[in-house]
Amino acid sequence: MVNNYTASVIGARGYVGLETAQLLLSHPHVELTHCYATSGFKLSNHLPLEKTKTLFCGDMQTIDSDKTDFYFLATPAEASMELAPKLLAKGSKVIDLSGAFRLKTSSYKTWYGFEHKQSALLQSAHFGLMPWFKPTAETTFIANPGCYSSATLMALLPLLKQDLINIDTLVIDAKSGTTGAGKKVSENILFSEVADDCLPYKIARHQHFPEIQEIIKRLTGLEINPHFSTHLLPTRRGITVGLYAQLKKSVDQQTVQMAFADAYAQSPLIEWGAIDDNSSLLSLRKVVGTARTHIAYQIDGNKLYVFSAIDNLLKGAASQAIENMNAMIGIPHHTGLNNLRNML
Amino acid sequence: MVNNYTASVIGARGYVGLETAQLLLSHPHVELTHCYATSGFKLSNHLPLEKTKTLFCGDMQTIDSDKTDFYFLATPAEASMELAPKLLAKGSKVIDLSGAFRLKTSSYKTWYGFEHKQSALLQSAHFGLMPWFKPTAETTFIANPGCYSSATLMALLPLLKQDLINIDTLVIDAKSGTTGAGKKVSENILFSEVADDCLPYKIARHQHFPEIQEIIKRLTGLEINPHFSTHLLPTRRGITVGLYAQLKKSVDQQTVQMAFADAYAQSPLIEWGAIDDNSSLLSLRKVVGTARTHIAYQIDGNKLYVFSAIDNLLKGAASQAIENMNAMIGIPHHTGLNNLRNML
Amino acid sequence: MVNNYTASVIGARGYVGLETAQLLLSHPHVELTHCYATSGFKLSNHLPLEKTKTLFCGDMQTIDSDKTDFYFLATPAEASMELAPKLLAKGSKVIDLSGAFRLKTSSYKTWYGFEHKQSALLQSAHFGLMPWFKPTAETTFIANPGCYSSATLMALLPLLKQDLINIDTLVIDAKSGTTGAGKKVSENILFSEVADDCLPYKIARHQHFPEIQEIIKRLTGLEINPHFSTHLLPTRRGITVGLYAQLKKSVDQQTVQMAFADAYAQSPLIEWGAIDDNSSLLSLRKVVGTARTHIAYQIDGNKLYVFSAIDNLLKGAASQAIENMNAMIGIPHHTGLNNLRNML
Amino acid sequence: MVNNYTASVIGARGYVGLETAQLLLSHPHVELTHCYATSGFKLSNHLPLEKTKTLFCGDMQTIDSDKTDFYFLATPAEASMELAPKLLAKGSKVIDLSGAFRLKTSSYKTWYGFEHKQSALLQSAHFGLMPWFKPTAETTFIANPGCYSSATLMALLPLLKQDLINIDTLVIDAKSGTTGAGKKVSENILFSEVADDCLPYKIARHQHFPEIQEIIKRLTGLEINPHFSTHLLPTRRGITVGLYAQLKKSVDQQTVQMAFADAYAQSPLIEWGAIDDNSSLLSLRKVVGTARTHIAYQIDGNKLYVFSAIDNLLKGAASQAIENMNAMIGIPHHTGLNNLRNML
Repeated sequence: MVNNYTASVIGARGYVGLETAQLLLSHPHVELTHCYATSGFKLSNHLPLEKTKTLFCGDMQTIDSDKTDFYFLATPAEASMELAPKLLAKGSKVIDLSGAFRLKTSSYKTWYGFEHKQSALLQSAHFGLMPWFKPTAETTFIANPGCYSSATLMALLPLLKQDLINIDTLVIDAKSGTTGAGKKVSENILFSEVADDCLPYKIARHQHFPEIQEIIKRLTGLEINPHFSTHLLPTRRGITVGLYAQLKKSVDQQTVQMAFADAYAQSPLIEWGAIDDNSSLLSLRKVVGTARTHIAYQIDGNKLYVFSAIDNLLKGAASQAIENMNAMIGIPHHTGLNNLRNML
Repeated sequence: MVNNYTASVIGARGYVGLETAQLLLSHPHVELTHCYATSGFKLSNHLPLEKTKTLFCGDMQTIDSDKTDFYFLATPAEASMELAPKLLAKGSKVIDLSGAFRLKTSSYKTWYGFEHKQSALLQSAHFGLMPWFKPTAETTFIANPGCYSSATLMALLPLLKQDLINIDTLVIDAKSGTTGAGKKVSENILFSEVADDCLPYKIARHQHFPEIQEIIKRLTGLEINPHFSTHLLPTRRGITVGLYAQLKKSVDQQTVQMAFADAYAQSPLIEWGAIDDNSSLLSLRKVVGTARTHIAYQIDGNKLYVFSAIDNLLKGAASQAIENMNAMIGIPHHTGLNNLRNML
Repeated sequence: MVNNYTASVIGARGYVGLETAQLLLSHPHVELTHCYATSGFKLSNHLPLEKTKTLFCGDMQTIDSDKTDFYFLATPAEASMELAPKLLAKGSKVIDLSGAFRLKTSSYKTWYGFEHKQSALLQSAHFGLMPWFKPTAETTFIANPGCYSSATLMALLPLLKQDLINIDTLVIDAKSGTTGAGKKVSENILFSEVADDCLPYKIARHQHFPEIQEIIKRLTGLEINPHFSTHLLPTRRGITVGLYAQLKKSVDQQTVQMAFADAYAQSPLIEWGAIDDNSSLLSLRKVVGTARTHIAYQIDGNKLYVFSAIDNLLKGAASQAIENMNAMIGIPHHTGLNNLRNML
Repeated sequence: MVNNYTASVIGARGYVGLETAQLLLSHPHVELTHCYATSGFKLSNHLPLEKTKTLFCGDMQTIDSDKTDFYFLATPAEASMELAPKLLAKGSKVIDLSGAFRLKTSSYKTWYGFEHKQSALLQSAHFGLMPWFKPTAETTFIANPGCYSSATLMALLPLLKQDLINIDTLVIDAKSGTTGAGKKVSENILFSEVADDCLPYKIARHQHFPEIQEIIKRLTGLEINPHFSTHLLPTRRGITVGLYAQLKKSVDQQTVQMAFADAYAQSPLIEWGAIDDNSSLLSLRKVVGTARTHIAYQIDGNKLYVFSAIDNLLKGAASQAIENMNAMIGIPHHTGLNNLRNML
């Protein structure tokens, strides 16, 4: 029998915080007991009333007065940088969903616009991309991966681990729904600006680029420098990434299929296959709402096409965080996640 | 301990059939064992592979060879009219999600374009709008309500039961996402035709209009003849209905609030309130993906505004069908339905 | 031969200002010479470079230093209230596209949230709804109608002028694209909030409601108090309004058709008809991008359904303003407007 | 003084045919006198009534009975293949907007699924990509380019003509609105299937791929074999293409800027620039509704990013066809095209 744990979400007002809270509210072994948000926020306006009735909801100033086993930080990176050490000092486990603790060698000044003040903690943070980096009962602090990074790395790591592609030819073209940009108002994410468009943005400047480079280096030793472009889709949720590269000699469809099978055979939330065998793996809508990762590929001569799709708020944020928590507790990683439904 | 039951979905290819199958796949007491669709259909292209692996999927010709406790008909009305008596003859219980058995006094020729050939069965069909018409263990055949009818009746019945409005002033303006039109291809539901528009359609000719009239008559004795308009929204899912009427004398906000409380206090899937108290009840997105009904109202002098929102594929179809099945089994109506999540 | 005139747009950064500027840039008899916006705005980022090259673009502080024949105010209502008298004092003609000068008897405090400080000017402002209130060469100051008001009044005025409907039964349900809410950032108009929804808002509190009441009173003597609801559509442009009422005795389709013909036979930008004769008049997309008004109706017993569609930024704002300017110049009202194209 | 010409559109029911008709209706020197469509089609349901009143609209069977100076074929490829020689035999000029006459060396059987039966005519067809292949007064038959081809080639040709990129590293990721798929109904372009998604399709099998290869070969001698992927965007109109490649040594931003300037300095409908100088060139919405091509680029080390945006129905079809017609007449190529407006 698994003991019950308590959890808090800090930053419950944004989409990532709300989604994390929603997942915790139906988790079988963890009870969401506290939510914190900027003042004026009412959780019951966003999630069903009866579920949120007994939950403590306070503003950010009240965090100190209680303690839970887990803290989920759905706060801006600079806020996470300040909060994480304080919460760890309570003896709690912390899962940070911001970018504050993901980059170990790249410059925070360059990519995030602020100086990092917690270098020791930064070095010790566990980058929680499941199933590649599994936390254990001893892990106390997780840097949850970025949404673009997750979608990209899930498709790329199996190929690079087995040295199947010529990395000099790699190009990554990613497209995301608007919830990835959060709820902080700015003109460029107004409906009137996003609809009927598909805007490339932060070209050569996206902060998930060094995150991808660092993780590839750490897991494979390879230094990659691909084209990486990001687009804002007129959809609310979901990331689809096109990865394009030339195959190394003698790599064929079976080799590629085996690379994904080797990596993910034990992962019930990941599905992969050749486009000709299952073109529905290409659909963003099929993963949105779920904790799943879909990977579809096609080979044309020596050209490899791979398409990876996740829900940016789930595998790209909240459900990934739950996978990490489950691993720290020692229960199956997909606990509480395998009944999530897509919208057909 | 509840016994387990088996169920089939006939017409699994459409959105209603798929959604019904998806709900059954995670129902705690009923096992979906059979799906039938037009040939060429692969359920695993739409729902997670591991869930659908052990399920029999056949084409419509193979229905006769097996028997399950429940049959869900997600077929066109004329097909349902033929299938229902055959399946009932097996001794199974049947829930028809088409319009084939909803109208008892209005003309099928006028509203559906075909002559009804099963008049006895039509008269005995149980109109399954929960919680208004609760099936029992003896019920064998359900006519599941239409999507517009469900959204409209859920808001209207409490008001009419308590005689709060002047029915001569009633106007109903309804808006639906495109999944309500199904998956059968026609030019008017192409993305290029629906996007950037909000098209009124079937004005004064929608087949859910007589359905609403008949049910109001049956439950309240009132003969209503309101304006009823339907629009195609550029969204995939969800129905929002505006109901406008003049209040009878001395009806105030408390009377209205009490009318809904009297009707729905025992229904965990229904939420209601004054707009000023909870404007989030107005949001379509808050109910889409869930089995919930949200009702928000505002009073301005003697003018009453009521807005009702449901997911057309859930309370407007599949989850309503599950509520009916649960009632026939004798378990709480919302079994398997209260953990459905919205997309925030 | 028509003389050439000069014009300025003040508030060019918003959608209404931009659209007005775009129309003026291809007007045959008026030259747009000045644009004013909050600092940092570059018109050439929004309209084709070669058209905007020779145009003066300054920030709001520089307005005093020049003078043009016409000023178009696409500013917030409070800013317009301050600017209008100053520009009129230059001897220029002013067309205000805000709500600052539309209400003559209703309270600005109640509906707009500020005290009106220009009551004399308010009383003298010409409400420029074409073809109902035609400016002349003597007109110097126009209060350009609101977008919802325009769509509603264009459909309603012909019916009320000829006393065809029972006004106690009137209900107005309006739906608008998001550009109607402007470019000022706020959470409720983010893409992530608007998409997949159709939110009723400002129920019984929309500032266009008293505007409609006042104009109906002024033109017909009738005091109406209909239900009036407004919704935010997940589209960028366009307003569609459903008007529902009971017909007076002996009013039939021919009477209704004649009422519109009497009102609009001389107006090449207005089209009307029974839904059965031309259902394409119901489509929002068919008017978006054009200066046109489409009105479609259907009669069912004594119930009248009317649907009115305009582009909120054109007939609901910028092209209406151009019609007013044309009338003041003394050229055909649709000059520069009849080649605008819809997006099919 | 330019003489007036007459023109017909064959296949007026589809989006390309309608858009061509709409452009011709306001062309200063050409009169659209005939439209042909499958029976039951009413042009006045799609374009303003007064413009279409005097126009002959017949079904496809009536084409033989008249003759106009120009014929625009907006028909399926196989229909165009049959119609083109017949219309040319009348002595008319023909502009085919289908793919029937674009491929000179690639296999029609492979890419279009039918055997080409007009090989002589195929070889003589003028590929009308402006300004790269200018027709003259002698040109009688135009193969109008494909929409993806146009967007891709406009960005790629200047770079390849001046040998700026390493072609072995080229990757093309293209995204299109749904009107590119036409109006022919099929399940995959239903609103319910396209919305909330961004589906890669026809990977390694799109018929515009060999078209791009052939044209590059013809104009530059280079044989390219890039990755080429196409996606269906949840928008109605517009194509945005990301082109990614490694720059040859010593190529810098100025070299790239000059390459576009050399190619397009005389073309008022084309705009280009570095993203840092004008990020609005990245927006699809800024070109939709216009005949313009926008090209934006960014250099990061030796990595070149180029984004190209057009309206698939205009520069990708109808306005390109008008440019071709204008060139055959001998008037400025952008006649009738430079006042088209975007939707802001």
